Amino acid sequence: MLTLSELAEISNSELRGDPQCVVASVAPIDGARLGDISFVRENKYKTYLEKTKASAVILPESMSEDFSGNILINKDPYLAYAKVVAALFPVIRPANSIHPTAIIHETALIEENVYIGANVVVGAGTKIKSQAIIGTACTIAENCIIGAFTELKPNAVLYANCQLGEYCLIHSGAILGADGFGFAPQKGGEWYKIPQVGDVVLGNNVEVGANTCIDRAALGSTIIGNGVKLDNLIQIGHNVNIGDDTAIAAHTAVAGSVTIGKRCRIAGAVAIAGHLNIVDDVTITGRALVSNAIRKAGVYSSGLVAVENQVWRKNVARFRKLDELFRKVIKLENTLKGRKNERNGCK
Amino acid sequence: MLTLSELAEISNSELRGDPQCVVASVAPIDGARLGDISFVRENKYKTYLEKTKASAVILPESMSEDFSGNILINKDPYLAYAKVVAALFPVIRPANSIHPTAIIHETALIEENVYIGANVVVGAGTKIKSQAIIGTACTIAENCIIGAFTELKPNAVLYANCQLGEYCLIHSGAILGADGFGFAPQKGGEWYKIPQVGDVVLGNNVEVGANTCIDRAALGSTIIGNGVKLDNLIQIGHNVNIGDDTAIAAHTAVAGSVTIGKRCRIAGAVAIAGHLNIVDDVTITGRALVSNAIRKAGVYSSGLVAVENQVWRKNVARFRKLDELFRKVIKLENTLKGRKNERNGCK
Amino acid sequence: MLTLSELAEISNSELRGDPQCVVASVAPIDGARLGDISFVRENKYKTYLEKTKASAVILPESMSEDFSGNILINKDPYLAYAKVVAALFPVIRPANSIHPTAIIHETALIEENVYIGANVVVGAGTKIKSQAIIGTACTIAENCIIGAFTELKPNAVLYANCQLGEYCLIHSGAILGADGFGFAPQKGGEWYKIPQVGDVVLGNNVEVGANTCIDRAALGSTIIGNGVKLDNLIQIGHNVNIGDDTAIAAHTAVAGSVTIGKRCRIAGAVAIAGHLNIVDDVTITGRALVSNAIRKAGVYSSGLVAVENQVWRKNVARFRKLDELFRKVIKLENTLKGRKNERNGCK
Repeated sequence: MLTLSELAEISNSELRGDPQCVVASVAPIDGARLGDISFVRENKYKTYLEKTKASAVILPESMSEDFSGNILINKDPYLAYAKVVAALFPVIRPANSIHPTAIIHETALIEENVYIGANVVVGAGTKIKSQAIIGTACTIAENCIIGAFTELKPNAVLYANCQLGEYCLIHSGAILGADGFGFAPQKGGEWYKIPQVGDVVLGNNVEVGANTCIDRAALGSTIIGNGVKLDNLIQIGHNVNIGDDTAIAAHTAVAGSVTIGKRCRIAGAVAIAGHLNIVDDVTITGRALVSNAIRKAGVYSSGLVAVENQVWRKNVARFRKLDELFRKVIKLENTLKGRKNERNGCK
Repeated sequence: MLTLSELAEISNSELRGDPQCVVASVAPIDGARLGDISFVRENKYKTYLEKTKASAVILPESMSEDFSGNILINKDPYLAYAKVVAALFPVIRPANSIHPTAIIHETALIEENVYIGANVVVGAGTKIKSQAIIGTACTIAENCIIGAFTELKPNAVLYANCQLGEYCLIHSGAILGADGFGFAPQKGGEWYKIPQVGDVVLGNNVEVGANTCIDRAALGSTIIGNGVKLDNLIQIGHNVNIGDDTAIAAHTAVAGSVTIGKRCRIAGAVAIAGHLNIVDDVTITGRALVSNAIRKAGVYSSGLVAVENQVWRKNVARFRKLDELFRKVIKLENTLKGRKNERNGCK
Repeated sequence: MLTLSELAEISNSELRGDPQCVVASVAPIDGARLGDISFVRENKYKTYLEKTKASAVILPESMSEDFSGNILINKDPYLAYAKVVAALFPVIRPANSIHPTAIIHETALIEENVYIGANVVVGAGTKIKSQAIIGTACTIAENCIIGAFTELKPNAVLYANCQLGEYCLIHSGAILGADGFGFAPQKGGEWYKIPQVGDVVLGNNVEVGANTCIDRAALGSTIIGNGVKLDNLIQIGHNVNIGDDTAIAAHTAVAGSVTIGKRCRIAGAVAIAGHLNIVDDVTITGRALVSNAIRKAGVYSSGLVAVENQVWRKNVARFRKLDELFRKVIKLENTLKGRKNERNGCK
C-alpha cells in the first residue's frame, strides 16, 4: 500500500487531489474498486471516468478536466501505470543461498550474494556473477557466464558457452545454445551433421519467454541485443542477430542467419525465412510470413483473416485460379479496346 | 482381457453374439486380428466389415445387419470404443509415496495418499491434495494448489499461485504461470516491464499438453474452465479466459486477454489476436488467423492450401495486385454499361 | 588445427597447393582470415575469391581456376566443408560414469561404458546401451530402450516404452511419448479421454530438436525412421510415421496419423492436417498448410508473403469478395460474347 503522493513521485506524475489517499492495487478503469488506481489514455475509455470507483486515475493532461476524483497527470499514462504496478507489487528476491543439493563444478566461479536453488547443476568454468538467481533444477553447462542480477527460472537449460548480460530474465523451459539445424545432404539422402560450434550471446535486460529456444551459432555467435524481449515458444535459429530493444511475441519462428534491426516489433506466430535482413523500426503484424528482406521501416503484414467456413471454401477454391482470372480480365480489356477502335473506325 | 459381456456393460452397449468371447486389445477395422475389438461409425468403412478378423465390432444400430460376427450396438460407437480402450488398458497408479529426494517446504501442506516423485521441489504454502501424483523433477513454487487426483508428469513447472482443480493432467514440460508479455515502451525504445502479479486458475478435468505454456495474468487470473483440453506446444497469453469443455489442438497461440466460450473446437496452428471475444460453440479450422471477434456459433476458417510451387508462385504474385484487379473489373463493367446506354440511346 | 593434407584426406578432396598449410578454423568466404578454411559452391560468390584472406578454399572443379591460393577440390564443397568442420571441432565425449545422484531403478539394465549425469531418473525395465550419454536431469520412464551411442541432452523426458535406435541425439526439453490428443465427445460437451496406450519408436541417427514433442501412438507406434532430422519446437502427433532421412524445420506441426515419405524436406512453420499421406521426395516450403494428401514428388507451397500493411489491408478485404469477382468476370465475358453474336447477327 502506498499513498498517492508516493506514487506521484515514483511515476513522475503531477498529483491533483488527496496526497494521503491510500492505494492498495491496480485495476482496469471499468472494474476498479475503492483502493485501486487505474489509467486511461484513449478518449474512447473516457466515459468510464464518470462511474469508476477507482481511488485515483492516471490521465494525460488533456483528460484531466474529465475526472473529478484524484488524478495523477502524466504524458504517458501507460508507462506511469507500469511504474505504479512495480511499486505496489515489488518482486521479493529470495535470500542469497546455495541449496545443498546444487551440484557445482569445482572450477565454476560463483560470486558472492547469489541464490542457487535445489538440484541446479553448474558446469566447469562457468561464472555466476553477484546477485544472480538460478531457479530449481536449471542446468548450466560449461563455460557459461551469467551476468549480475540475471535470473533463471526453474528448469531452464543453458548449453556450453552461453553468455548472458546483466538483469536478464530467462523463463522456465527456455533452452539456450542447442544445436542449430545444419546438415549437408549426402548421396542416397542421408544427412551429414555440421557441428554447431558457435555460441549464444545475450546483452543486458533481455527477457526470454517460457519454452523459447535460442540456438547456438554454427560458427561465431547468435546475438540477442540489449533490452530484447522474447515471449514464449519462440524459435531463434543459429547465427541470428537481433538488435537492441526489439520485441517478439509468442510462437514466432526466426530461421537461421536472419538479422533483425533495433526497436522492431514482431507480433506472434510470425515466420521469418533464413538469411534475411530486416532494418530498424520495422513492425510485423501477427501470423505474417516474411520471405524477403525488409529494407525500409514501416508496418508489414500478410495472411488472411478467418471468415465463415463456406465463404472461405469458395474464395480458396477461386484463389487457385487467380492467375487465370487476371488473364481473362486482360483479354476482356483488349476485346473492349479492339471494339472501341473498331467503332471509332466506323465513324 | 475382458469378455464381450463385460465390455457391453462397461460401454453401455447392446450385445449381439457370444458374451464369453474374450477381447484382449483394440485395433482399426482394417488391421484388426483375432482377439481385437474394433469400431465403425461411418458408412464408408462398412466394406471392411466383410473381411475384418476382429473378434467383435462396435456398430450403430443402422449397421448391425451388415456384420455377421459379434457386435456391440451403440448409438455412439466412438465413445463406446473409448470406454472399451479405457477398460482394457487401465492406468496403473504409482503406489502412494514421497521420494526421499523430494524437497518439500515445511509450510507446504501435503495430504495423505499422494505420490511425489524423485527430485520434486514444492514451495512454501503449497497444498497438494489427496490422490495427487507429482512426477519426477517437477517444480511447484509457492502457494499453489494441486487438486485431488490431479497428475503432473515429469518436468512440469508451476510458478507461484497456480491453482489446479481435480482430475487434471499436466504433461511434461508444461509451464504454468510464467510472466505474461507486458511492457510499456519508453522514450528511446527501451521497454519497461509491467510486473505480472496475477495468477493461473484451472478447473477440474483439464488436460494440458507437453511444453504448453499458460501465462499468469497481469492482474487477476488467467482462467481455464472445467474439462478444457489443451494439446502440446500451445501458448495461452495472460488474462485469457477459456470456457468449459473447449478443446485446442497443438501449436495454437492465444494472445493476451482473449475470451473463448464453452465447447469451442480450435484446431492446430491457429493464431488468435489479443483482446478478442469468441462465443460458445465456435469451431476454428487449422492454421486460421482470428483477428476479429466471433459473435456467432459456427465454423470459421482462413489460410490457403498448399499447391504445386509454380501454381503458388503465380497466384501469390497476382494476389499482390488483387485490389488493382477489382478496380479494373469495375471499370470494365462501367464501360460496358456506358456502351449499352449509348446503344440504347441510338435505337 | 590440422594440415591441408589431412583435411584433403578427411574430406575426400583433391589438394592443389601447400599440403603443410595449417588450418585452425572455418569461416564464410567474405569473413575468413588467415588460418581459416572456407568454401564456395555457387558462381555468385566467386567474386569473393579475389580478396578473401582464407588460407584455403573448398571449390568445385569448375571454379578451381578462379582462385590462386590453396584449394581443396570436391564435387560437393558443402559436404566437404561439413567434414572439415567435424574434423576441426571434434565432439568430446564426457568420461563414462554414473553420477551418484542418478536414481536408477533396480530392474533397469545399464550396459557398460555409459555416461549418466546428475539427477537423472531411470524407470523400471529400461535398457541403456553401451556408449549412451544421458544428460543432467533427464527422466526416462519405464521400459524404454536407449540405443548405443545415443545422447540425451539435459532435461529431456521420455515417457514409458519409448525405443530409440543408435546414434540418436535428443535435445533438451524434448518430450517423447506424451499422450496423443484423443478424446471422444459426450452429450453435454464433455470429453472422454481415449487412453493413449501405444508407444514411440525412433530409428538410428535421428536428431530431435529442443522442446520438440513426439506423442505416443493411441495404439501401435509413432514411428520416426532412420536418419530423420527434426528441428526445435516441432509437434509430431500420435501414430505419425516419418520415412527415412526426412528433415523437418522448426515450429512445424504434424497432426495425428500422418504418413510422410522418405527424403522429404519440410520447412519451418508448416502445418500438416491429420490422416494425410505424403509420398517420398516431397519438399514443402515454409509456412505452408497441407490439407490434402500429396501423391507426387515435387515442391509444394501455400501462404502469402508479407507486404506493406496498406497494400495487405486492401488485398485482404478484396480476397473476401474473390468469389464475387469471378462471377462478375464470367458475366462480363458472357455479355461481350452476347454482343458479338448480336453484332454478327446484324451483319
